[in-house]
Amino acid sequence: VSGTGRGGLFGGLFDRGAAGTGDQAWLAAMLDTEAALARALERAGLAPPGAGAAVTEAARPGAFDIGELGRRAASAGNPVPALVRALTAMVPPETKDTVHQGATSQDILDTAVMLMARRVLDAVLADLSAAAAAAAALAEAHRDTVMLGRTLLQQAVPVTFGLVAAGWLTGIDEASHGLDRIRGQRLAVQFGGAAGTLASLGAEGPRVRALLASELGLARPPLPWHTDRLRIIELASALAGACGVLGKVARDVTLLAQSEVAEVRQGGPGGAGRGEADSGGGGRRGGSSAMPNKRNPVAAVVILGCTRRAPGLLAALAACAEQEHQRAAGAWHAEWEPVADLLRLTASAASWAAELLAGLEVDADRMRANLDAAGGLPLAESVAAALAPALGRLPAHDLVAEAAAAATARGGDLRGALLDAPDRVARLTDAGITAERIDAALDPAGYLGSAAAFTDEALAAHRSPSR
Amino acid sequence: VSGTGRGGLFGGLFDRGAAGTGDQAWLAAMLDTEAALARALERAGLAPPGAGAAVTEAARPGAFDIGELGRRAASAGNPVPALVRALTAMVPPETKDTVHQGATSQDILDTAVMLMARRVLDAVLADLSAAAAAAAALAEAHRDTVMLGRTLLQQAVPVTFGLVAAGWLTGIDEASHGLDRIRGQRLAVQFGGAAGTLASLGAEGPRVRALLASELGLARPPLPWHTDRLRIIELASALAGACGVLGKVARDVTLLAQSEVAEVRQGGPGGAGRGEADSGGGGRRGGSSAMPNKRNPVAAVVILGCTRRAPGLLAALAACAEQEHQRAAGAWHAEWEPVADLLRLTASAASWAAELLAGLEVDADRMRANLDAAGGLPLAESVAAALAPALGRLPAHDLVAEAAAAATARGGDLRGALLDAPDRVARLTDAGITAERIDAALDPAGYLGSAAAFTDEALAAHRSPSR
Amino acid sequence: VSGTGRGGLFGGLFDRGAAGTGDQAWLAAMLDTEAALARALERAGLAPPGAGAAVTEAARPGAFDIGELGRRAASAGNPVPALVRALTAMVPPETKDTVHQGATSQDILDTAVMLMARRVLDAVLADLSAAAAAAAALAEAHRDTVMLGRTLLQQAVPVTFGLVAAGWLTGIDEASHGLDRIRGQRLAVQFGGAAGTLASLGAEGPRVRALLASELGLARPPLPWHTDRLRIIELASALAGACGVLGKVARDVTLLAQSEVAEVRQGGPGGAGRGEADSGGGGRRGGSSAMPNKRNPVAAVVILGCTRRAPGLLAALAACAEQEHQRAAGAWHAEWEPVADLLRLTASAASWAAELLAGLEVDADRMRANLDAAGGLPLAESVAAALAPALGRLPAHDLVAEAAAAATARGGDLRGALLDAPDRVARLTDAGITAERIDAALDPAGYLGSAAAFTDEALAAHRSPSR
Amino acid sequence: VSGTGRGGLFGGLFDRGAAGTGDQAWLAAMLDTEAALARALERAGLAPPGAGAAVTEAARPGAFDIGELGRRAASAGNPVPALVRALTAMVPPETKDTVHQGATSQDILDTAVMLMARRVLDAVLADLSAAAAAAAALAEAHRDTVMLGRTLLQQAVPVTFGLVAAGWLTGIDEASHGLDRIRGQRLAVQFGGAAGTLASLGAEGPRVRALLASELGLARPPLPWHTDRLRIIELASALAGACGVLGKVARDVTLLAQSEVAEVRQGGPGGAGRGEADSGGGGRRGGSSAMPNKRNPVAAVVILGCTRRAPGLLAALAACAEQEHQRAAGAWHAEWEPVADLLRLTASAASWAAELLAGLEVDADRMRANLDAAGGLPLAESVAAALAPALGRLPAHDLVAEAAAAATARGGDLRGALLDAPDRVARLTDAGITAERIDAALDPAGYLGSAAAFTDEALAAHRSPSR
Repeated sequence: VSGTGRGGLFGGLFDRGAAGTGDQAWLAAMLDTEAALARALERAGLAPPGAGAAVTEAARPGAFDIGELGRRAASAGNPVPALVRALTAMVPPETKDTVHQGATSQDILDTAVMLMARRVLDAVLADLSAAAAAAAALAEAHRDTVMLGRTLLQQAVPVTFGLVAAGWLTGIDEASHGLDRIRGQRLAVQFGGAAGTLASLGAEGPRVRALLASELGLARPPLPWHTDRLRIIELASALAGACGVLGKVARDVTLLAQSEVAEVRQGGPGGAGRGEADSGGGGRRGGSSAMPNKRNPVAAVVILGCTRRAPGLLAALAACAEQEHQRAAGAWHAEWEPVADLLRLTASAASWAAELLAGLEVDADRMRANLDAAGGLPLAESVAAALAPALGRLPAHDLVAEAAAAATARGGDLRGALLDAPDRVARLTDAGITAERIDAALDPAGYLGSAAAFTDEALAAHRSPSR
Repeated sequence: VSGTGRGGLFGGLFDRGAAGTGDQAWLAAMLDTEAALARALERAGLAPPGAGAAVTEAARPGAFDIGELGRRAASAGNPVPALVRALTAMVPPETKDTVHQGATSQDILDTAVMLMARRVLDAVLADLSAAAAAAAALAEAHRDTVMLGRTLLQQAVPVTFGLVAAGWLTGIDEASHGLDRIRGQRLAVQFGGAAGTLASLGAEGPRVRALLASELGLARPPLPWHTDRLRIIELASALAGACGVLGKVARDVTLLAQSEVAEVRQGGPGGAGRGEADSGGGGRRGGSSAMPNKRNPVAAVVILGCTRRAPGLLAALAACAEQEHQRAAGAWHAEWEPVADLLRLTASAASWAAELLAGLEVDADRMRANLDAAGGLPLAESVAAALAPALGRLPAHDLVAEAAAAATARGGDLRGALLDAPDRVARLTDAGITAERIDAALDPAGYLGSAAAFTDEALAAHRSPSR
Repeated sequence: VSGTGRGGLFGGLFDRGAAGTGDQAWLAAMLDTEAALARALERAGLAPPGAGAAVTEAARPGAFDIGELGRRAASAGNPVPALVRALTAMVPPETKDTVHQGATSQDILDTAVMLMARRVLDAVLADLSAAAAAAAALAEAHRDTVMLGRTLLQQAVPVTFGLVAAGWLTGIDEASHGLDRIRGQRLAVQFGGAAGTLASLGAEGPRVRALLASELGLARPPLPWHTDRLRIIELASALAGACGVLGKVARDVTLLAQSEVAEVRQGGPGGAGRGEADSGGGGRRGGSSAMPNKRNPVAAVVILGCTRRAPGLLAALAACAEQEHQRAAGAWHAEWEPVADLLRLTASAASWAAELLAGLEVDADRMRANLDAAGGLPLAESVAAALAPALGRLPAHDLVAEAAAAATARGGDLRGALLDAPDRVARLTDAGITAERIDAALDPAGYLGSAAAFTDEALAAHRSPSR
Repeated sequence: VSGTGRGGLFGGLFDRGAAGTGDQAWLAAMLDTEAALARALERAGLAPPGAGAAVTEAARPGAFDIGELGRRAASAGNPVPALVRALTAMVPPETKDTVHQGATSQDILDTAVMLMARRVLDAVLADLSAAAAAAAALAEAHRDTVMLGRTLLQQAVPVTFGLVAAGWLTGIDEASHGLDRIRGQRLAVQFGGAAGTLASLGAEGPRVRALLASELGLARPPLPWHTDRLRIIELASALAGACGVLGKVARDVTLLAQSEVAEVRQGGPGGAGRGEADSGGGGRRGGSSAMPNKRNPVAAVVILGCTRRAPGLLAALAACAEQEHQRAAGAWHAEWEPVADLLRLTASAASWAAELLAGLEVDADRMRANLDAAGGLPLAESVAAALAPALGRLPAHDLVAEAAAAATARGGDLRGALLDAPDRVARLTDAGITAERIDAALDPAGYLGSAAAFTDEALAAHRSPSR
């Protein structure tokens, strides 16, 4: 599992995945494509023997000056022509014609995106798998840990923390499934030449294209997709889906970790993070902070810092789909940075999530204490249901509502409001309802419905080999 | 195939699909859910015999006052409680307890979205199927129709219109495939009760939930997805993908239909649309317009008016994924309108696209004329390749480049620049290159590379039963 | 101030402003534009006397069939030509040529958007003014009400509720200021004719345009802005800014209203909303609900349901700015619905916010109790500062950190941890630090820094006539 | 004016402004803030004499290890604590307590964003000013250059290129105005300490804050804006507005530069760019390319590659406005990269636009030739108007429409269709209409309406000192 940050002022936060998306990663992926093309041409008999090996040998990222390529990109509108020129200069004379033969800049850049995406997706899937394993362990361990359910940020009926974790698990598993499908089916070679006909290869286009796909292990679509950007949208959508799921987990953690709730807290290295409590003299490791009461959920916060980027990047990429003719004037160029950003941020979020979930500290006692502090009100529905057979549904409901209102007014003790008020006691007694029966209905463990069943189902789906 | 517009001032443009997403459609889908729940409860033995039929009978959209429901929605934050109250009032006394039993508002609204989505997706898929059939017919008919390729909005090497149409076809087919997958696998019942435990149903929750899913023909996920919104993102992504593909088609059509290009034009009813040429007295059907030179590509323009909405709506929905605890405070509510808008606009775009492609008039002569008017310059690469064996690659390239520059300077006649300039003629003659050989290289039909092969491959993929 | 909902299934939630943006509002604004044009033409001497009055008389929304206009919109790509035809049919023969003279469809639609925007902005500004007044009253009333500050959702140093409300106030005031600037300076007439030259009016174009602007009370820019959409972006940005500010208020309210925090709660009609606690038999007005412990902050939740829409709509409108030549093929059409949606949702959010803030119930005792329950830990920084002069900065810090850690371990009592532990007491005593001094430092009222000053400054800015 | 690219593989394209937004720029701006704070504290008497100078001296970006800061950022969730620690280590002992005194991380990061924004805005405003000057020169030079107007990508009535350029000019000027307003009024210091009260400064908070604002030349708002992000939205909106305007210019240029239109072309260094025509052996500077017919409008294309990013980034920033309590858990963090990206991309677009417009080659002859090639059809409206006095409005319209239809059928010669067809000639002769009158009506220079007046008005507004 990934984790230490890949450089840059915000690298420890937003560039934490195990595979890169920066200039080095772009360059490597472009060179891998050029090298694979040379090998494909050789296999097709369109390049001299050894040409593939020679280009592959020359195509080492370290040999190229990224800054220089970037400056020269301004004359062509993309960095490939300068790269091709530099690469050509490095290969033996008899191999020079092989470099980039038949290709257009977009072939190289689009294929590089696919290769980069595959590398990042592998890292993301590994991190999500770790996160899912941790969520599954939480779901299992807390299958019967009762806690308050909360809707619209208000306390509602009880749930279990197992069910909460099972919800996280299902989300992560389904997001992984979507990413895995993209990785397996939708990452495809791009090779069409100047206008998508591979004209300069005569009749050999399809064969070279198939060999290139095979060299790179990418899918081969019916035709070049220079201006059919559906697979970019699909990749971006699956990434945004993963961000959506991880953002939900992180949001729950920040809420459950609130000082007033304190039902979970972040463990591990990030857990000690004291983001903003930074007096000049502070920061001695293990030393004191100005606000020792704070234990900032850094991992969850940074996950949200990553995942909140996804919608805008997804929209940017979806808006790029309207591409003109055989190559877009701008809409293609506008894809490069966002697709790399979205890969990077999803990878960072997944890396943080694996750490967060693996180290999450769950305070089952506090969960129970918070529930108890609600004075039985979350169980009002349960009590009304228990009284209904004896009192009738409506009278039962009215009696409980009346008691609940009374309980709310005096700080929340539904049991007391039912059993201490003479007139209500009389009604209960008349109906033959005992305090034991009330107490049973007030037991949250008895009003969990399908929580355990749902948790088990999510765990079974997680373990199912067919996912 | 759909098409006439469903009402409203912009209805003929943006609400044209065969299935609705307006208030009536919402209401119908909510009532269908309530009715199915009653039937499921009866099947589970939790409601008296006949309760399912009674609720189903009462759940007729026409019997409800939408404005009143909308006004009452303000007190609960959603329209379901008022709907439940109204529905309950319409059923026999012994059935009243069955209405909405076990459910929470979100169960009804989320399931209604799924039902509405299915109805709309059916219409979208039918329209996309018609659009794909039309694109396939174009690809087949114009498999060998030569035209200019254009990259960055500049003329490039030749392509065929068949290849262009095949690109549209592949995009539409793959977008359909994505929508079909969502329709078949990701539209799922929502049923979890107040906090996702179905507590009020005791141990019967899973059974009722399975029966409800079966009544509605929706998938049954491991657990309620109240705050796991991945399937909403996936639905929206597939819709936005379809919009992306259709937007590309429409963009190409608007560009090819430009007065100066005039290679295609919109046929059919919309083709005569004369949007803004609207003098007060104009508009007599079949009458003259102030600008008779205009033939606005209304269908393509309106498709773009629809598809350009998709990215913002997709982003809005993706941003809603960060939902709190067991029910979100706002992020859920913010989904309702965008999901309906995105369904509606995709359906409208698909409906317009089916009409546009079925009626598209292709002017193969103009395509050829435009190519010829380019004076052979798009074939310069072809000529250089033809000369290379005799002259050497670099000298051939330089000779052609020199001729091309000369041709460009005098309005574009590459053949003349090669064969009329004494020094260039001498070089060609010395190398034994005949005018016939030049002419052959200048024939666009001879420099199409894999265009036909790619077209055939796309058509084969379209016809393949396995897609 | 607005408030009851304008119809539709979600109208009570999302269509609550005092001015409409639906089909009726569009139609009225288009007709107002046509009528004003006729009057301008008459004033310019280009239409017969009485033409202005005649067209104005005919231009009554009720006389037009919106559905029919919408259906006919499909042939032109917008509803104006059909509207012009219908309007022309209603005026006397000698006035027919005056209808729409010189105009193009876009002139009518763009100007209508401006008129509609002005009407909605007036309502929004009124609602924001009410909201600001309520926030100011809260800031003033609670200028010295101490409460916990919370950063990253963790308790931090104390603040005042006055300061919180002052922050809301400043945001609302500044957002209003932005909207007011747009209303006053950037709502401009659109009148350019077929391609922005007003050719059919010969030399009279500028004069008619100025008269039209004057009739409508709109600004007159240097030239038509058919494809310069900056003012649409600016309008949308100011609306999104208002949504951003209101969303922050609503988010704070939902968090402060959490059952576990309970420092504020929504009063008024919406306060009793019990969103999802909707058993079939519930909902009797004044009756009991199944979850009497819940008091859903409906207004705040629905505000978030509105404000979360703004970013996607803003992005959609900003993406439409790239418009071709003299009229865009799609990008213009894609603006219509989002601009209306954004106006509507901002208006709804503002209406809800005015109600929310006016009725907000603030529980100062609970604020104090929550602070006290934190056991002095939020004041650790204050205590360390108090000890520093006597102990030295670093030793003071270390001593407090040690005590805070001990306090945290036993549930949070910093005073006890300082004054009950013999070794710490010894150190304090040696330094001559009394328990009184500790207690003073632990008094949150003594550690509020500039809270009151900032609150006063915000109130002064609010009252300043120069805003 | 800016222009060469600031490094990175895409730096020559997307990081071209004169002021940076990368890690170095962030670091410098953060250090400038810390240094200014030390000076402010000294001026307020809260730091020893010389402390300000000492911290300022130490706060040199080159002395810090960005990678190390980035890695350490992971523990706090932002890079400031590590920076403060490193900075503190570099100052003399007596100054250590002064470093960061009173501040929180967010104070430093938010203020740094404001400083970075000001630097970038200065560069953007300079580039926009150059672009506006070039547009003004074009408008002036081509005030009477007739060209085809085009609506919905179809030829419409004539316009002038002067009017087109005047439209660009007005857009650029108004976008500059918006940015200038933000620069002057809305870039504000952030200084609130841990929770916005500046508690650790006691009563001195407001004074230090005012001094800090004065040191940095930033505005001083009523209170800290930690979680009131309106000014971020306003900054982003103004940047997105500028992108919208520049995108419109670039879109027009790409369309006018189409091979089939060829009315403008990009001059200067970028004009020779041959983006994708990149055979392996090609690219020799000054050498020939495989597709000499292509002259890619690289500047315009890259502008679009920049400006199309703006809506997604704007949406991301607007979505971050919903910030919790006194510091947001994620929404704040999610702002950092997008605000820097948006500044960078706007700066790049502005830099490219200045170059593009300064070097734009306008082919007035081709404009005229394209108009002539339309065979008078764009003047049909003009002819009908000319005939109306003699024939009556409707008969005139019908006659012209009939002729236009005939002309369209045979390739477009409206004059011929009017004057060669015996029956039409007869009708014209009977009405006393001469060929000269027809010819006058067919002269596009006579049907330009307010084009020159609008152009002049835009130029006057541009020159007005009051803008």
